[in-house]
Amino acid sequence: MTLTLVGLGLGAVEDITLRGLKAVQAADAVYLEIYTSALIDSNLQELEAFFGKRIVEADRICVEEHNEAILEEAREKNVVILVAGDPLSATTHCDICLRAIKNKVEVEVIHNASIINSVGRTGLQLYRFGEVVSIPLFEENWAPTSFYDKIVRNMQANMHTLCLLDIKVKERSIENLMAKRMVFEPPRYMTVNVAIEQIRQVDEKRREIAMSARAVGVARLGSKTAKIVAGTLEQLYKVDFGAPLHSLVICAPELHDIEEEYFRHYNYETCKSQCSESENI
Amino acid sequence: MTLTLVGLGLGAVEDITLRGLKAVQAADAVYLEIYTSALIDSNLQELEAFFGKRIVEADRICVEEHNEAILEEAREKNVVILVAGDPLSATTHCDICLRAIKNKVEVEVIHNASIINSVGRTGLQLYRFGEVVSIPLFEENWAPTSFYDKIVRNMQANMHTLCLLDIKVKERSIENLMAKRMVFEPPRYMTVNVAIEQIRQVDEKRREIAMSARAVGVARLGSKTAKIVAGTLEQLYKVDFGAPLHSLVICAPELHDIEEEYFRHYNYETCKSQCSESENI
Repeated sequence: MTLTLVGLGLGAVEDITLRGLKAVQAADAVYLEIYTSALIDSNLQELEAFFGKRIVEADRICVEEHNEAILEEAREKNVVILVAGDPLSATTHCDICLRAIKNKVEVEVIHNASIINSVGRTGLQLYRFGEVVSIPLFEENWAPTSFYDKIVRNMQANMHTLCLLDIKVKERSIENLMAKRMVFEPPRYMTVNVAIEQIRQVDEKRREIAMSARAVGVARLGSKTAKIVAGTLEQLYKVDFGAPLHSLVICAPELHDIEEEYFRHYNYETCKSQCSESENI
Repeated sequence: MTLTLVGLGLGAVEDITLRGLKAVQAADAVYLEIYTSALIDSNLQELEAFFGKRIVEADRICVEEHNEAILEEAREKNVVILVAGDPLSATTHCDICLRAIKNKVEVEVIHNASIINSVGRTGLQLYRFGEVVSIPLFEENWAPTSFYDKIVRNMQANMHTLCLLDIKVKERSIENLMAKRMVFEPPRYMTVNVAIEQIRQVDEKRREIAMSARAVGVARLGSKTAKIVAGTLEQLYKVDFGAPLHSLVICAPELHDIEEEYFRHYNYETCKSQCSESENI
């Protein structure tokens, strides 16, 4: 029997691959991982209806702390874990694969598109991206700035930076955590606006990323309601990107010809009027 | 009518997404782009049989120089260009999208997995990769070394480097090019071994990448015959990775715990005996 991690791709049910669909159809148990990414154009009920199977939501506690249970189940059954995007883009899933290998549970991974490669949609060339950065939601008394250093380093090397924006799903407050109460906070997805605000906050002391730096804001990439807007950080701060998921690309100081053309195509100024509409490319 | 770029994913026919399949089924004309990537577990005939459609091979000349013809066709018909991996990982396809937009031809892009995100399969964490590098096949009197500089820069920043290895499909010799003869050289796909040999060649003068540096060689990733071997450059040089496509990851000097475990799992020494067998994970 096998543990299969199936990437769901960028948004809708039909972004699954035929190979992924077959794995789901052959599965005895199907989980949906919900804390490293999120479904855009679909939801649990829609997936269940589409696949004709019951699907169990798997949160961080289930996948990280109680994964022995899933591995044990995979000894006797075909178990599928559905992951939005590509399964191995998050460390957690590399970890569970490794545990499976060690425990002699057969593992299969069915890849799919993720923001890491689909960001090519912005017209910014993938080979010009430096280190990927995760921007964490600042808390009171907790505002780490390593993401800022990495963006600066990429800019100095004339490279783009893909900033993945924080997701908080099924998080517990410190009070509930202490009291071991399974009471969860509502999910929070960082917006492009909050990301820019946090960059600005760090920049007040550091002064290395000007608000006139060029960037591309991306929302719901690959879905019918995708929105891509290019502009300065200052301009993008004013744009309403709508529902999650959002990502932000900080551009290299110099753009190549094709990149410049795309930047103009997606430009804040030129698309201000039709910005609320869907963007297919 | 629409021009749709459909990513085929990593290897087999069934790696296409349901959305991609629908686009092919609705297409009046289907092209298969063959010069930025290659099919691994399938071929043109298999794709034609699977889709029940005639598929025309599109080489560099067709897509780059004669793309007006394809754009013109897309005004009146639904045209699909199939691309192995993800469509927008290659500059060429960003270019054709832009031309389509300018010519008011509707464009759609259907993303899929590519080596850029699936390299997570090695256990090396995606957020620890620096700039992607392309290693060109050295010719007599032509041996550019910018890839070497980029690898060194990534290593200095303690980051991994994904090296994409050169593909030469439907290339013409200088004689045939001068004589405008459409006679093509046999396709060439750079192997991990040739890549390491070229790094070594540059290193003879530069002395910045030791042959004891750690790396992971990857062949036919995502397919049933995938092969992943971790070791020093010196060790990997001796490994037969088999049929194309190959890629090479030069590791950051320091690996994280999970990365170390994966490195051991895929290690040259431990998998020397079963190295010829298929690796599913």
